[in-house]
Amino acid sequence: MDNSGFCNDDYSGGSSDDDLVDLSATAQDLLEDPPDDEWNRGGPGYTPGGGRGQNGTAKLLDLLDDGLHGVGTYDDFNTIDWMKEKSKDRDRHREIYKKKNQSVLDLLLSVSDAFSGWLLMLLIGLMSAHWLTDLKEGVCLNGFWFNHEHCCWNSKDTTFQERDKCPHWKSWAELTLGVSEGASAYVVNYLLYVSWALLFSYLAVILVRAFAPYACGSGIPEIKTILSGFIIRGYLGKWTLLIKTITLVLAVSSGLSLGKEGPLVHVACCCGNIFCHLFTKYRKNEAKRREVLSAASAVGVSVAFGAPVGGVLFSLEEVSYYFPLKTMWRSFFAALVAAFTLRSINPFGNSQLVLFYVEFHTPWHLLELVPFVLLGIFGGLWGAFFIRANMAWCRRRKNTRLGRYPVLEVALVTLATALLAFPNDYTRMSGSHLISELFNDCSLLDSSQLCDYTSQGKGGAGNASLSYGANFSSGLSERAAGPGVYTAIWQLALALVFKTLITVVTFGMKVPSGLFIPSMAVGAIAGRLLGIGMEQLVFYNHDWPIFKGCSSSTKCITPGLYAMLGAAACLGGVTRMTVSLVVIMFELTGGLEYIVPLMAATMTSKWVADALGREGIYEAHIRLNGYPFLEPKEEFKHKTLAMDVMRPRCSDPPLSVLTQSGMSVDQVEALISDTSYSGFPVVVSQETQRLVGFVLRRDLVISIENARRMQEGIVGASQVLFTEHTSAQPYGGPPPVCLRGIIDLSPLAITDHTPMDITVDIFRKLGLRQCLVTQNGVFFLLYLCRRLLGIITKKDILKHMAQMTNRDPESILFN
Amino acid sequence: MDNSGFCNDDYSGGSSDDDLVDLSATAQDLLEDPPDDEWNRGGPGYTPGGGRGQNGTAKLLDLLDDGLHGVGTYDDFNTIDWMKEKSKDRDRHREIYKKKNQSVLDLLLSVSDAFSGWLLMLLIGLMSAHWLTDLKEGVCLNGFWFNHEHCCWNSKDTTFQERDKCPHWKSWAELTLGVSEGASAYVVNYLLYVSWALLFSYLAVILVRAFAPYACGSGIPEIKTILSGFIIRGYLGKWTLLIKTITLVLAVSSGLSLGKEGPLVHVACCCGNIFCHLFTKYRKNEAKRREVLSAASAVGVSVAFGAPVGGVLFSLEEVSYYFPLKTMWRSFFAALVAAFTLRSINPFGNSQLVLFYVEFHTPWHLLELVPFVLLGIFGGLWGAFFIRANMAWCRRRKNTRLGRYPVLEVALVTLATALLAFPNDYTRMSGSHLISELFNDCSLLDSSQLCDYTSQGKGGAGNASLSYGANFSSGLSERAAGPGVYTAIWQLALALVFKTLITVVTFGMKVPSGLFIPSMAVGAIAGRLLGIGMEQLVFYNHDWPIFKGCSSSTKCITPGLYAMLGAAACLGGVTRMTVSLVVIMFELTGGLEYIVPLMAATMTSKWVADALGREGIYEAHIRLNGYPFLEPKEEFKHKTLAMDVMRPRCSDPPLSVLTQSGMSVDQVEALISDTSYSGFPVVVSQETQRLVGFVLRRDLVISIENARRMQEGIVGASQVLFTEHTSAQPYGGPPPVCLRGIIDLSPLAITDHTPMDITVDIFRKLGLRQCLVTQNGVFFLLYLCRRLLGIITKKDILKHMAQMTNRDPESILFN
Repeated sequence: MDNSGFCNDDYSGGSSDDDLVDLSATAQDLLEDPPDDEWNRGGPGYTPGGGRGQNGTAKLLDLLDDGLHGVGTYDDFNTIDWMKEKSKDRDRHREIYKKKNQSVLDLLLSVSDAFSGWLLMLLIGLMSAHWLTDLKEGVCLNGFWFNHEHCCWNSKDTTFQERDKCPHWKSWAELTLGVSEGASAYVVNYLLYVSWALLFSYLAVILVRAFAPYACGSGIPEIKTILSGFIIRGYLGKWTLLIKTITLVLAVSSGLSLGKEGPLVHVACCCGNIFCHLFTKYRKNEAKRREVLSAASAVGVSVAFGAPVGGVLFSLEEVSYYFPLKTMWRSFFAALVAAFTLRSINPFGNSQLVLFYVEFHTPWHLLELVPFVLLGIFGGLWGAFFIRANMAWCRRRKNTRLGRYPVLEVALVTLATALLAFPNDYTRMSGSHLISELFNDCSLLDSSQLCDYTSQGKGGAGNASLSYGANFSSGLSERAAGPGVYTAIWQLALALVFKTLITVVTFGMKVPSGLFIPSMAVGAIAGRLLGIGMEQLVFYNHDWPIFKGCSSSTKCITPGLYAMLGAAACLGGVTRMTVSLVVIMFELTGGLEYIVPLMAATMTSKWVADALGREGIYEAHIRLNGYPFLEPKEEFKHKTLAMDVMRPRCSDPPLSVLTQSGMSVDQVEALISDTSYSGFPVVVSQETQRLVGFVLRRDLVISIENARRMQEGIVGASQVLFTEHTSAQPYGGPPPVCLRGIIDLSPLAITDHTPMDITVDIFRKLGLRQCLVTQNGVFFLLYLCRRLLGIITKKDILKHMAQMTNRDPESILFN
Repeated sequence: MDNSGFCNDDYSGGSSDDDLVDLSATAQDLLEDPPDDEWNRGGPGYTPGGGRGQNGTAKLLDLLDDGLHGVGTYDDFNTIDWMKEKSKDRDRHREIYKKKNQSVLDLLLSVSDAFSGWLLMLLIGLMSAHWLTDLKEGVCLNGFWFNHEHCCWNSKDTTFQERDKCPHWKSWAELTLGVSEGASAYVVNYLLYVSWALLFSYLAVILVRAFAPYACGSGIPEIKTILSGFIIRGYLGKWTLLIKTITLVLAVSSGLSLGKEGPLVHVACCCGNIFCHLFTKYRKNEAKRREVLSAASAVGVSVAFGAPVGGVLFSLEEVSYYFPLKTMWRSFFAALVAAFTLRSINPFGNSQLVLFYVEFHTPWHLLELVPFVLLGIFGGLWGAFFIRANMAWCRRRKNTRLGRYPVLEVALVTLATALLAFPNDYTRMSGSHLISELFNDCSLLDSSQLCDYTSQGKGGAGNASLSYGANFSSGLSERAAGPGVYTAIWQLALALVFKTLITVVTFGMKVPSGLFIPSMAVGAIAGRLLGIGMEQLVFYNHDWPIFKGCSSSTKCITPGLYAMLGAAACLGGVTRMTVSLVVIMFELTGGLEYIVPLMAATMTSKWVADALGREGIYEAHIRLNGYPFLEPKEEFKHKTLAMDVMRPRCSDPPLSVLTQSGMSVDQVEALISDTSYSGFPVVVSQETQRLVGFVLRRDLVISIENARRMQEGIVGASQVLFTEHTSAQPYGGPPPVCLRGIIDLSPLAITDHTPMDITVDIFRKLGLRQCLVTQNGVFFLLYLCRRLLGIITKKDILKHMAQMTNRDPESILFN
């Protein structure tokens, strides 16, 4: 570039590991392996000339090992610049592609580069499915090494129907139950249940606190934030993976009202992140890595629910920020592999990828749309209530002394849960067991309490209630509820209230806790209750004109379907999913013919919930934590201009800028220590403020640090030069520090009169971290240049948005 | 604004009708209803001050009737500016929202505005479903007013199985068949078939040519282009709707190798576009209208296949350009309504939304993945071959004399189709009938030729072939093919070749022609052949170790499943859909358990086809027609800079600009007539070229035209002023024309060193039409201003992309 030789400004991009980059260590590394490859500079500043790349003769090793230095990486709890990262990756790709005809090695490199994405997806799909299904949720009495499926397979005496009740398989919580039989043993069982629950939850919270504080909660709010371009180091690391997996099993086994689906998404993303380290392309590029994480979250749902298409849509609709079609195909492939792996592992034992397989296929009636919409309204109301209550509780936890005793909190909640849950059959069983019980339609041989119908003639002269038995006579189309059903109704109603209240305080505790299963359980209870009500209404009033359609021989009301719709409605009300929820539900249950009722219930639920509060539970948690998340769903509605948002404001001191020449190292360091801005514009001179480019604070700090250590003769009085031609260096003085390589020469600039709605759109769509604001110039004196006025960062925009909606702008904590 | 009173520059946005806006007519309208509402100016130029909106006291009527003038609209065959349109809509929304507390009427207006989107979706869902299912594909012999379902419902003698063979219902093509029975009648039937086909196709092509030339073809390439922001007036108009519906029925009935699914998407979009005229919000805003059209295309697929979720995904993956989550929810709702309407109309007569319902649910074996992947490879190869062959044929049609005789071409192709199709059972039947026949698994009572299996003992001593009968003995797990199956194999192989060749020449003719059914038919044939082959291979070699899993009592190979996968693979190879295709296929068949095989076949097909050519059939047709479509899927890989693409180039004359003051009307008109640019930058003066804003050519022409007609004293020497303060007007001279209102004051500008990959990204994501290029300035002398260098338009980018991939840049025809 130039012959002076001491301008080590060619530091490339490259990303960071789990740990914060240690500056002194990287400077040491620099001594051993000085980077001289030209093409890598595509990172922070784009190469200005078109012909630059030709002399790029980077060695293969450099290609793989660049990014030893911190330039172009990000601090923890900071936002990435999508444009920059994607541009870096395109540069890298172009270079590999161009060299592919030079040697066989280069050709192989290019081919492996092209396929590494698919290979990574294959690995994630394979390993996540294995890892996630290997959660030992119980123990096999025939041999502890068997999993659920193999345990029950080996014990030949179980039929297909009874696979859940295979006697040799005991979940951890069940293990202590039933040790003593008889009427007096109830108290013993009760005590055992409670102490077992306390032990498990205590272990879980202790492990989380000791080894991986990030392992708590659902993880989806943080993953949404990370995918939108935020750095949280260690959030997707190996310790989080390990501890979250262990504590998730403990938490689920302790009988707390929580599910494993949300945390499984987090675990899958950890898997994805760890596999990213195998491939330079993904290790070194934050944008590419986020594409992989989007796919991993699809895999998480795919495995958790056995719903591959639903997983892809979940990632698209709920989790991802940037989801191009290419990522969609990759996610699809990863979900395919995961689903296929799941099928070969066969964890549910019925060689179908269906968790809550429903066996009824009775058609529904138009009339039933009314109760379906009612369920949607219930789901929406419940979702809105849950979000408000949970937010109020979490805010109290955050702001009062409660938050200081997380272990005690978990212990108390577990104690309350266990004490209240044991007496009621429907709360004692696990959430997913409860859901599949409620989704189930009563077949002829069903012995459950919910299926205790009296067999009855057409005349309606009720008698002969077969207690806890099945009715073999007069078909299933005409059913009056027996005493078992009435008992079940009361128990379910109590369970509904209990589950609602306990889930409010459980979600957000310092243990892994998902929300899918608890909210589905609440919805399923409500749905089943309504379904039984409808069924009895039709039974006792089948002469009403509106029930005319029901008088035929086919069954009319299927309470299991109501439970399914209620579950969808409540889940929709809490998470505000629509399309993905419908797809997940019908992949979950196999009920393709119920797509219209599902859509009706889900849409109603979303409308009702949105009318009561715009945010879903995940967005609410993101806001509570103050993460810088620019919601892609909501439009910016106010009529402000970029000049109202940019820093500095009119009253502030003027913008701190660097000049392209003339500043000494001391001056630059003073500027850095005096200000807290995350970047500085470089201008030609203080007088004109004409823009040259933009330098990130972090890059500047690292580069000066490196220069001081590496370059001889650098003192406080050395000049810092951002110019291209260093011929103007002062002879006799100390050698200058050339930092042109770290300038971004084409930062995006908008004019100060750009409306904020357009600015927000630009930030959102291009994934910017900051944007310069220049003066349009026309309103001032003629012949004034288009001057640099200020900078808008993502944080400024979020603060502005908070202000416009009367929230505290200081709640946005991070950059 | 100012007191001079003659500055009628507040022309608002608002979009155009089907017809090109007649300038003189709009000027006439202007006389009757001069617009003085301030807030409407949000259109072309953003209101510079924040406090402007307060004095907006727009009358209700103006609110509904603005946009009488052409300012802010687009010419035919031009690209829209998404940013501008969305900003316009936000301004409109903000205004309505702000006023909602002023009066009850305003409140109602605001509520109706919020719900108009959903109402529109409801209408589209309802009407499209009714319109599309009312296509009279045949006639009921019991009474011509019955549709298929009612016809067969009334004739009580049909069972569920036989619903397709209901004797009273005759499709148009069947109507003449079988008029005479007996051996000698074959020739009569043949002749009738051919002449019937010729009559229908002749009618179709004549109607298309006479009334609606846009009604030909599939329509999906054009809809993709329109959705990406292109204007083709009349493409979605009422004549196109009417003629396309009629000719589609004719073309399908004529027995040509074409389907109705693609055209149905076009028809649904026409419905959507026509309904848009009911709502000002959508009539006047091109971006909002495109959101509706995206949803309408989802409705089209939802109705055509009975696949609501698949429809939404099809719109997302294949058709739409800008598909925010809000549009996804709306599409989802519209698809829900359409599916629901479809269910209540019940066109397929089985109260399920399933077109090709498959009744088998036999599990598949791991080993079968090999043939499934083979089918995927076949699909990919076939797709790539089809695209190349069809492109070559279409290019020939376009460039040679062939294109001048479209009626003759249609007649010849119909003649060839009819002559060759009649002798073969499988080509004579309609495409969808063929597919459902091939998807069907042989049940016990099936009398089809394909189900002619010999019943046989375990030993394999073949005998007792029941000709065209069913085998009642020894279960279905062991089947040797009988003579009927062997005949079918030959006929299917011939049909495969015939269908492939004839579809190549059919797709792109001047009749409505879809591609889904023909390519699915080809795939289904190939799949069924492979399925029968596999079945026989397993049957004769069930002692091979790899077939060990098959020796159990369950059925091993299901040829119908192979047909299903083949259909998906071929459709995927042609259209390159992935996720949407899988969802459509399993909604189409109800085969939820076959999602992994479907995914495997589809992914393989896409990989193979992509390796042979990057473009799907729709993209290829878009390129053939020279539409300005910026493919969102493909990355720009070259290392060029914005300065290499912008106009003017170095060798060109300098950029034509307007100055903000000092130009006369004559000068501006001379500039307009001398150049063909679609817009002009406005600069402070010719010397500095410092940018003020940007003016679109069309807006300029219309405004000057209006001023000449409306404003007194405007002559050629009148000054054109773009300044805000008109105090500098020359006293004594003719009054000036104030055109500040049409300037875009904050046009997006990039520097000349911005890499093209980033520029393409910005264009794609923000939906820009043009972008200004300014000089970074640092490479030149100090104290020079950041100068305007040139403009990049979408067309420039597309031409540059064509050039970089060694295609003819002149193939991009439109702006």
